[in-house]
Amino acid sequence: MSRYADRVKGIEPFRVVEVLTQAREMEASGIDVVHMEAGEPDFATVGPIIERAKTALDEGATYYTSALGLPELREKVAGFYKRQYGLDIPAQRILITPGASGALLMMAALLVNPGEGMLMTDPGYPCNRNFLRLVGGEGQLVPVGVEDRYQLTAAIAEKHWQPNTVGALVASPANPTGEILRRNELEDLYALVKAKNGTLVVDEIYHGLTYGEETPSILEITDDVFVINSFSKYFGMTGWRLGWMVVPEDAVPELERLAQNVFISMSTMGQYGALAGFEEEALAILDQRRDIFHRRRDYLVPALREIGFGIPHMPDGALYVYASIEKFSSDSEAFCKEMLEVHHVAITPGVDFGTYKANTHVRFAYTTSMDQLKKGVARLKKALA
Amino acid sequence: MSRYADRVKGIEPFRVVEVLTQAREMEASGIDVVHMEAGEPDFATVGPIIERAKTALDEGATYYTSALGLPELREKVAGFYKRQYGLDIPAQRILITPGASGALLMMAALLVNPGEGMLMTDPGYPCNRNFLRLVGGEGQLVPVGVEDRYQLTAAIAEKHWQPNTVGALVASPANPTGEILRRNELEDLYALVKAKNGTLVVDEIYHGLTYGEETPSILEITDDVFVINSFSKYFGMTGWRLGWMVVPEDAVPELERLAQNVFISMSTMGQYGALAGFEEEALAILDQRRDIFHRRRDYLVPALREIGFGIPHMPDGALYVYASIEKFSSDSEAFCKEMLEVHHVAITPGVDFGTYKANTHVRFAYTTSMDQLKKGVARLKKALA
Repeated sequence: MSRYADRVKGIEPFRVVEVLTQAREMEASGIDVVHMEAGEPDFATVGPIIERAKTALDEGATYYTSALGLPELREKVAGFYKRQYGLDIPAQRILITPGASGALLMMAALLVNPGEGMLMTDPGYPCNRNFLRLVGGEGQLVPVGVEDRYQLTAAIAEKHWQPNTVGALVASPANPTGEILRRNELEDLYALVKAKNGTLVVDEIYHGLTYGEETPSILEITDDVFVINSFSKYFGMTGWRLGWMVVPEDAVPELERLAQNVFISMSTMGQYGALAGFEEEALAILDQRRDIFHRRRDYLVPALREIGFGIPHMPDGALYVYASIEKFSSDSEAFCKEMLEVHHVAITPGVDFGTYKANTHVRFAYTTSMDQLKKGVARLKKALA
Repeated sequence: MSRYADRVKGIEPFRVVEVLTQAREMEASGIDVVHMEAGEPDFATVGPIIERAKTALDEGATYYTSALGLPELREKVAGFYKRQYGLDIPAQRILITPGASGALLMMAALLVNPGEGMLMTDPGYPCNRNFLRLVGGEGQLVPVGVEDRYQLTAAIAEKHWQPNTVGALVASPANPTGEILRRNELEDLYALVKAKNGTLVVDEIYHGLTYGEETPSILEITDDVFVINSFSKYFGMTGWRLGWMVVPEDAVPELERLAQNVFISMSTMGQYGALAGFEEEALAILDQRRDIFHRRRDYLVPALREIGFGIPHMPDGALYVYASIEKFSSDSEAFCKEMLEVHHVAITPGVDFGTYKANTHVRFAYTTSMDQLKKGVARLKKALA
């Protein structure tokens, strides 16, 4: 049969999908499973967004839009930066993308030549390295531990910068750790990347889902940066596949040609729906949901610590707790398998997010109700007593 | 500022977007423009699809789906191959993609190593070569003329096959020419590609929009092929960004991992909407629309010939007429500019689709009403008398 390109051999499957699939099969056979594996908010998209999308459909908004997105939506995102951060970002520098995934693809295509690489953390979002692989580049994985709140600090980046490194891709808050880069850390990292003549890319898809700690956008520090964002997490629009980028002005025409060729455009009714996400009515609901995630985190972290999971620092945001299982196991895949099959709690093994200490860590997602979290904790407590 | 990767320098802008933008600006200043430039059906998506998507939204279908698409939709596509072609294609071999664009990206990522290439026609869909460029491959453009109905025959493919060629990407019907590959041509091309140990990829996104000539799917000939298809053209769902692929069984796990990483999933409400496209009520409307395109083609081609445009062969399908302007000009960009600015008829210069005889060809899209086509023809007749 067909011969396949070498790049696909190195792409790992997601363990979380396997966990989810197995959990669903168990449910189909009548078993009650507590889901703490999926990185997707458990709330359906808010009513105002749904209603706006339905109106757009009724009005026949079923044609292509500009490859850069609906102008009104780019303006709304600009207004959001003003509202949330007091920043004046021209809509011209904001590009709507097919999910943050589409933005990551464009970033890789624009910034990385074959043979070049970008620094990224291990643990980190597993797809990042594969966008680079697609264009012949490499994700240069930098082991980071809880002592640095799992973040790529300037000092760590300097130590790992290689001759073929052209930039750094960081996430704040990060997946799977929920940790943010603080203002001084962002400043120092940006200064280091510039000193190295590289490009800084910051994934801010979990902005809006932080619980106390001030979470600055890199755009408060510089315009000379690529920011990846998404309607999936705070706005709760995973299944709509919409994201955005904020980019330096001179990158816009390059990215426009790329987007025209690679995507043509994004979901039109989705873009109309997203417009309503910026209305006060929707934002009020979204902030309530953020508060619910906040309460879940505040419940889950101490409860897991009590059982014996290692969580030295309270995660700042996102939907996750990245916890050490050293006390119980040195094989996170086997551990997760046992928790699922014997104790009916679905969690994700650390190996989904890298290799560094991956065998002794797991990710809990608090994307299920407080009652379910309590049930899951009770089961884990019993299992690990 | 940032340094960009070399690949983006070689990506040309779409002239058609410039034409469309200029036409819209002229309209905004009160000028009546006849649009024959856009490759997008002029009909909004049919009612049953819209209603199904709205119902899905009401039911909270706003979460991720599987990276391969909704199982029900993959089954519907399988049923469509049975209905239209009498073929039994297992749903397992059908992957839903974010537009044909997403399918082309996956095809390039799966099949082409850096430094390798695929044969494709010049003229042809301009994005094809850029998907290959993204992964470090090259589109190996093969000049084809009206004497071969602008198609890549086995003989032409054999002549242009290079040591680094790993396959051929053809479209039937094709953009910008509307021409199909007949059964014996598909058979011969497949045999040649196999003899060369390559992979055949067939873009069938304009299937369903052919006007008389029998239009076989390559799947009637072999399962050892990658088929790209789309909900944009026959199903009239451009702004929904949905397509599909049919692939050999052993490619499914590879493509699943790629799709998980690069897309996560496709628009969920869009996929639910698409389910209704296969119902008899929707298909009846879609077939009526096909008949309207048929009548437009039958009007437009003789009318253009009468004015002096060179269209030696009646195009078999799609939404286009690719016509020689040799009688009027040897500069298609200047010709289109004059037709738009002076005579208010928007058409696309051949340079959008390649280089071979591109300066003496233009593309007419019959994606506007018969009245508008008649108005456009009258203007062209006067302009070129």
